[in-house]
Amino acid sequence: MSDLQSGFATPQEAEVAFYSAFAKCDTKAMDAVWAEEKVVCIHPDAQPIFGYDGVTRSWANILNSAELPDMLFNVVNSTVKDSLAIHVVEEQFVVGNDATVIILATNVYQKFEAGWLMIEHHGSTVPTELEKRTMQ
Amino acid sequence: MSDLQSGFATPQEAEVAFYSAFAKCDTKAMDAVWAEEKVVCIHPDAQPIFGYDGVTRSWANILNSAELPDMLFNVVNSTVKDSLAIHVVEEQFVVGNDATVIILATNVYQKFEAGWLMIEHHGSTVPTELEKRTMQ
Repeated sequence: MSDLQSGFATPQEAEVAFYSAFAKCDTKAMDAVWAEEKVVCIHPDAQPIFGYDGVTRSWANILNSAELPDMLFNVVNSTVKDSLAIHVVEEQFVVGNDATVIILATNVYQKFEAGWLMIEHHGSTVPTELEKRTMQ
Repeated sequence: MSDLQSGFATPQEAEVAFYSAFAKCDTKAMDAVWAEEKVVCIHPDAQPIFGYDGVTRSWANILNSAELPDMLFNVVNSTVKDSLAIHVVEEQFVVGNDATVIILATNVYQKFEAGWLMIEHHGSTVPTELEKRTMQ
Protein backbone atom coordinates (compact mmCIF):
# COMPACT_ATOMS: atom_id res chain seq x y z
CA MET A 1 0.00 0.00 0.00
CA SER A 2 1.51 3.35 -1.00
CA ASP A 3 1.71 6.46 1.17
CA LEU A 4 -1.39 7.75 -0.57
CA GLN A 5 -3.54 4.86 0.61
CA SER A 6 -3.33 5.59 4.31
CA GLY A 7 -7.06 5.24 4.71
CA PHE A 8 -9.69 7.16 6.63
CA ALA A 9 -10.99 6.78 10.16
CA THR A 10 -14.60 6.16 9.07
CA PRO A 11 -16.55 5.41 5.86
CA GLN A 12 -18.04 8.89 6.20
CA GLU A 13 -14.59 10.50 6.12
CA ALA A 14 -13.68 8.45 3.04
CA GLU A 15 -16.90 9.59 1.39
CA VAL A 16 -16.33 13.26 2.20
CA ALA A 17 -12.82 12.89 0.72
CA PHE A 18 -14.27 11.28 -2.43
CA TYR A 19 -16.80 14.06 -3.03
CA SER A 20 -14.31 16.76 -2.06
CA ALA A 21 -11.83 15.39 -4.65
CA PHE A 22 -14.68 15.26 -7.19
CA ALA A 23 -15.87 18.81 -6.48
CA LYS A 24 -12.33 20.24 -6.56
CA CYS A 25 -11.25 18.13 -9.62
CA ASP A 26 -8.30 17.03 -7.45
CA THR A 27 -6.90 13.87 -9.03
CA LYS A 28 -4.29 13.26 -6.31
CA ALA A 29 -6.93 13.41 -3.63
CA MET A 30 -9.11 11.06 -5.73
CA ASP A 31 -6.19 8.62 -6.05
CA ALA A 32 -5.95 8.56 -2.26
CA VAL A 33 -9.60 7.58 -1.78
CA TRP A 34 -9.40 4.25 -3.64
CA ALA A 35 -8.05 0.99 -2.27
CA GLU A 36 -5.28 -0.62 -4.25
CA GLU A 37 -6.93 -4.03 -4.00
CA LYS A 38 -9.70 -5.37 -6.20
CA VAL A 39 -11.80 -2.29 -6.99
CA VAL A 40 -14.50 -1.57 -9.55
CA CYS A 41 -16.07 1.62 -10.89
CA ILE A 42 -19.14 1.96 -13.09
CA HIS A 43 -19.60 5.47 -14.45
CA PRO A 44 -23.15 6.35 -15.59
CA ASP A 45 -24.13 4.48 -18.77
CA ALA A 46 -20.70 2.88 -19.06
CA GLN A 47 -18.99 -0.48 -18.81
CA PRO A 48 -17.31 -1.41 -15.53
CA ILE A 49 -13.65 -0.53 -14.99
CA PHE A 50 -11.62 -2.91 -12.84
CA GLY A 51 -8.44 -2.31 -10.84
CA TYR A 52 -6.81 0.69 -9.18
CA ASP A 53 -4.91 1.95 -12.23
CA GLY A 54 -7.86 1.84 -14.61
CA VAL A 55 -10.29 3.34 -12.09
CA THR A 56 -8.06 6.23 -11.02
CA ARG A 57 -7.14 6.92 -14.67
CA SER A 58 -10.85 7.13 -15.56
CA TRP A 59 -11.36 9.66 -12.76
CA ALA A 60 -8.32 11.65 -13.87
CA ASN A 61 -9.81 11.80 -17.37
CA ILE A 62 -13.11 13.07 -15.98
CA LEU A 63 -11.63 15.54 -13.50
CA ASN A 64 -8.99 16.93 -15.87
CA SER A 65 -11.61 17.68 -18.53
CA ALA A 66 -14.28 19.08 -16.22
CA GLU A 67 -15.10 22.55 -15.07
CA LEU A 68 -15.30 22.61 -11.27
CA PRO A 69 -18.75 21.07 -10.78
CA ASP A 70 -21.40 22.76 -8.67
CA MET A 71 -22.48 19.68 -6.77
CA LEU A 72 -24.11 18.41 -3.61
CA PHE A 73 -24.31 14.89 -2.24
CA ASN A 74 -26.89 13.37 0.06
CA VAL A 75 -26.62 9.88 1.59
CA VAL A 76 -30.07 8.28 1.23
CA ASN A 77 -29.26 4.78 2.53
CA SER A 78 -26.41 3.39 4.60
CA THR A 79 -25.47 -0.14 5.69
CA VAL A 80 -22.35 -0.73 7.77
CA LYS A 81 -21.38 -4.15 9.09
CA ASP A 82 -17.94 -5.06 10.35
CA SER A 83 -15.45 -4.05 7.64
CA LEU A 84 -17.80 -3.00 4.82
CA ALA A 85 -19.97 0.08 4.38
CA ILE A 86 -22.45 0.57 1.55
CA HIS A 87 -23.94 3.99 0.94
CA VAL A 88 -26.56 4.96 -1.61
CA VAL A 89 -25.96 8.58 -2.47
CA GLU A 90 -27.94 11.13 -4.49
CA GLU A 91 -25.49 13.39 -6.33
CA GLN A 92 -26.93 16.69 -7.55
CA PHE A 93 -25.10 18.67 -10.23
CA VAL A 94 -26.23 22.17 -11.11
CA VAL A 95 -25.55 22.45 -14.84
CA GLY A 96 -26.61 25.99 -15.62
CA ASN A 97 -29.87 27.95 -15.67
CA ASP A 98 -30.62 26.23 -12.35
CA ALA A 99 -31.06 22.91 -14.17
CA THR A 100 -30.05 19.94 -12.03
CA VAL A 101 -28.74 16.55 -13.10
CA ILE A 102 -29.21 13.73 -10.60
CA ILE A 103 -26.86 10.76 -10.43
CA LEU A 104 -27.54 7.89 -8.03
CA ALA A 105 -24.46 6.18 -6.70
CA THR A 106 -23.78 3.08 -4.70
CA ASN A 107 -20.49 3.66 -2.90
CA VAL A 108 -18.76 0.80 -1.11
CA TYR A 109 -15.98 1.28 1.43
CA GLN A 110 -13.83 -1.37 3.06
CA LYS A 111 -11.87 -1.16 6.30
CA PHE A 112 -8.25 -2.11 5.78
CA GLU A 113 -5.54 -2.18 8.44
CA ALA A 114 -4.70 1.43 7.66
CA GLY A 115 -8.29 2.63 7.50
CA TRP A 116 -11.38 2.89 5.27
CA LEU A 117 -11.00 3.17 1.49
CA MET A 118 -13.38 3.07 -1.47
CA ILE A 119 -13.66 -0.24 -3.31
CA GLU A 120 -16.69 0.41 -5.55
CA HIS A 121 -18.53 3.34 -7.11
CA HIS A 122 -21.57 2.57 -9.27
CA GLY A 123 -23.26 5.63 -10.74
CA SER A 124 -26.45 5.76 -12.78
CA THR A 125 -28.53 8.49 -14.29
CA VAL A 126 -32.04 9.45 -13.25
CA PRO A 127 -34.33 11.11 -15.81
CA THR A 128 -35.14 14.71 -14.95
CA GLU A 129 -38.77 15.78 -14.57
CA LEU A 130 -38.50 17.46 -17.99
CA GLU A 131 -37.16 14.27 -19.64
CA LYS A 132 -39.91 12.22 -18.00
CA ARG A 133 -42.59 14.58 -19.34
CA THR A 134 -41.01 14.50 -22.81
CA MET A 135 -41.02 10.70 -22.85
CA GLN A 136 -44.72 10.44 -21.95
CA MET B 1 -39.43 -12.20 9.76
CA SER B 2 -42.10 -14.09 7.84
CA ASP B 3 -41.91 -17.70 6.67
CA LEU B 4 -40.85 -16.45 3.25
CA GLN B 5 -37.69 -14.79 4.55
CA SER B 6 -35.96 -17.94 5.72
CA GLY B 7 -32.75 -16.92 3.99
CA PHE B 8 -30.18 -18.78 1.95
CA ALA B 9 -27.03 -20.67 2.96
CA THR B 10 -24.71 -18.45 0.86
CA PRO B 11 -24.84 -15.15 -1.05
CA GLN B 12 -24.49 -17.22 -4.24
CA GLU B 13 -27.64 -19.18 -3.43
CA ALA B 14 -29.52 -15.94 -2.74
CA GLU B 15 -28.30 -14.59 -6.09
CA VAL B 16 -29.33 -17.69 -8.01
CA ALA B 17 -32.76 -17.41 -6.36
CA PHE B 18 -32.99 -13.73 -7.37
CA TYR B 19 -32.19 -14.38 -11.03
CA SER B 20 -34.32 -17.53 -11.11
CA ALA B 21 -37.30 -15.52 -9.80
CA PHE B 22 -36.54 -12.83 -12.39
CA ALA B 23 -36.22 -15.29 -15.29
CA LYS B 24 -39.40 -17.16 -14.32
CA CYS B 25 -41.37 -13.96 -13.49
CA ASP B 26 -42.10 -15.60 -10.12
CA THR B 27 -43.18 -12.83 -7.75
CA LYS B 28 -43.48 -15.11 -4.69
CA ALA B 29 -39.92 -16.35 -5.18
CA MET B 30 -38.78 -12.72 -5.63
CA ASP B 31 -40.53 -11.75 -2.38
CA ALA B 32 -38.52 -14.46 -0.61
CA VAL B 33 -35.16 -13.13 -1.81
CA TRP B 34 -35.42 -9.72 -0.13
CA ALA B 35 -34.77 -8.96 3.52
CA GLU B 36 -37.57 -7.30 5.43
CA GLU B 37 -35.20 -4.82 7.00
CA LYS B 38 -33.92 -1.60 5.45
CA VAL B 39 -33.64 -2.43 1.74
CA VAL B 40 -33.24 -0.31 -1.38
CA CYS B 41 -33.69 -0.99 -5.08
CA ILE B 42 -32.68 1.23 -8.00
CA HIS B 43 -34.11 0.04 -11.30
CA PRO B 44 -32.27 1.29 -14.43
CA ASP B 45 -32.80 5.03 -14.99
CA ALA B 46 -35.14 5.29 -12.03
CA GLN B 47 -35.35 6.80 -8.57
CA PRO B 48 -34.51 4.61 -5.58
CA ILE B 49 -37.28 2.62 -3.89
CA PHE B 50 -36.94 2.06 -0.16
CA GLY B 51 -38.40 -0.66 2.06
CA TYR B 52 -39.58 -4.23 1.56
CA ASP B 53 -43.15 -3.43 0.50
CA GLY B 54 -42.18 -0.85 -2.11
CA VAL B 55 -39.31 -2.89 -3.50
CA THR B 56 -41.23 -6.16 -3.83
CA ARG B 57 -44.23 -4.29 -5.29
CA SER B 58 -41.94 -2.75 -7.94
CA TRP B 59 -40.66 -6.20 -8.87
CA ALA B 60 -44.21 -7.59 -8.99
CA ASN B 61 -45.13 -4.77 -11.40
CA ILE B 62 -42.15 -5.64 -13.62
CA LEU B 63 -42.57 -9.41 -13.48
CA ASN B 64 -46.35 -9.39 -13.95
CA SER B 65 -46.08 -7.25 -17.08
CA ALA B 66 -43.09 -9.03 -18.64
CA GLU B 67 -42.78 -11.86 -21.08
CA LEU B 68 -40.47 -14.53 -19.64
CA PRO B 69 -37.10 -12.90 -20.33
CA ASP B 70 -34.33 -14.73 -22.15
CA MET B 71 -31.54 -13.76 -19.80
CA LEU B 72 -28.12 -14.71 -18.51
CA PHE B 73 -26.18 -13.34 -15.58
CA ASN B 74 -22.46 -13.25 -15.00
CA VAL B 75 -20.79 -12.14 -11.76
CA VAL B 76 -17.88 -9.87 -12.73
CA ASN B 77 -16.77 -8.76 -9.26
CA SER B 78 -17.38 -10.13 -5.78
CA THR B 79 -16.48 -8.89 -2.30
CA VAL B 80 -17.53 -10.86 0.77
CA LYS B 81 -16.55 -9.86 4.29
CA ASP B 82 -18.22 -11.16 7.42
CA SER B 83 -21.96 -10.61 7.01
CA LEU B 84 -22.07 -8.60 3.75
CA ALA B 85 -21.53 -9.66 0.16
CA ILE B 86 -21.37 -7.29 -2.78
CA HIS B 87 -21.56 -8.62 -6.32
CA VAL B 88 -21.26 -6.72 -9.57
CA VAL B 89 -23.26 -8.61 -12.16
CA GLU B 90 -23.62 -8.27 -15.91
CA GLU B 91 -27.19 -9.14 -16.89
CA GLN B 92 -27.71 -10.00 -20.55
CA PHE B 93 -31.22 -9.92 -22.01
CA VAL B 94 -31.85 -11.25 -25.51
CA VAL B 95 -34.57 -8.98 -26.87
CA GLY B 96 -35.20 -10.41 -30.32
CA ASN B 97 -33.27 -10.73 -33.58
CA ASP B 98 -30.31 -11.74 -31.41
CA ALA B 99 -30.08 -8.17 -30.07
CA THR B 100 -28.79 -8.06 -26.51
CA VAL B 101 -29.44 -5.48 -23.81
CA ILE B 102 -26.85 -5.29 -21.03
CA ILE B 103 -27.71 -4.15 -17.51
CA LEU B 104 -25.01 -3.79 -14.87
CA ALA B 105 -26.14 -4.50 -11.34
CA THR B 106 -24.64 -4.10 -7.93
CA ASN B 107 -26.32 -6.68 -5.72
CA VAL B 108 -25.80 -6.59 -1.96
CA TYR B 109 -26.63 -9.49 0.35
CA GLN B 110 -26.61 -9.55 4.13
CA LYS B 111 -26.32 -12.54 6.44
CA PHE B 112 -29.14 -12.57 8.97
CA GLU B 113 -29.69 -15.18 11.67
CA ALA B 114 -31.79 -17.22 9.27
CA GLY B 115 -29.46 -16.85 6.30
CA TRP B 116 -28.43 -14.56 3.43
CA LEU B 117 -30.97 -12.18 1.88
CA MET B 118 -30.80 -9.35 -0.65
CA ILE B 119 -30.68 -5.82 0.76
CA GLU B 120 -29.83 -3.81 -2.36
CA HIS B 121 -30.13 -4.06 -6.12
CA HIS B 122 -28.80 -1.17 -8.22
CA GLY B 123 -29.21 -1.64 -11.96
CA SER B 124 -27.96 0.63 -14.73
CA THR B 125 -28.01 0.52 -18.48
CA VAL B 126 -24.98 0.15 -20.73
CA PRO B 127 -25.18 1.53 -24.27
CA THR B 128 -25.10 -1.19 -26.92
CA GLU B 129 -22.40 -1.11 -29.62
CA LEU B 130 -25.06 0.15 -32.04
CA GLU B 131 -26.11 2.99 -29.71
CA LYS B 132 -22.45 3.95 -29.17
CA ARG B 133 -21.87 4.13 -32.91
CA THR B 134 -25.06 6.17 -33.39
CA MET B 135 -23.98 8.66 -30.73
CA GLN B 136 -20.58 9.24 -32.31
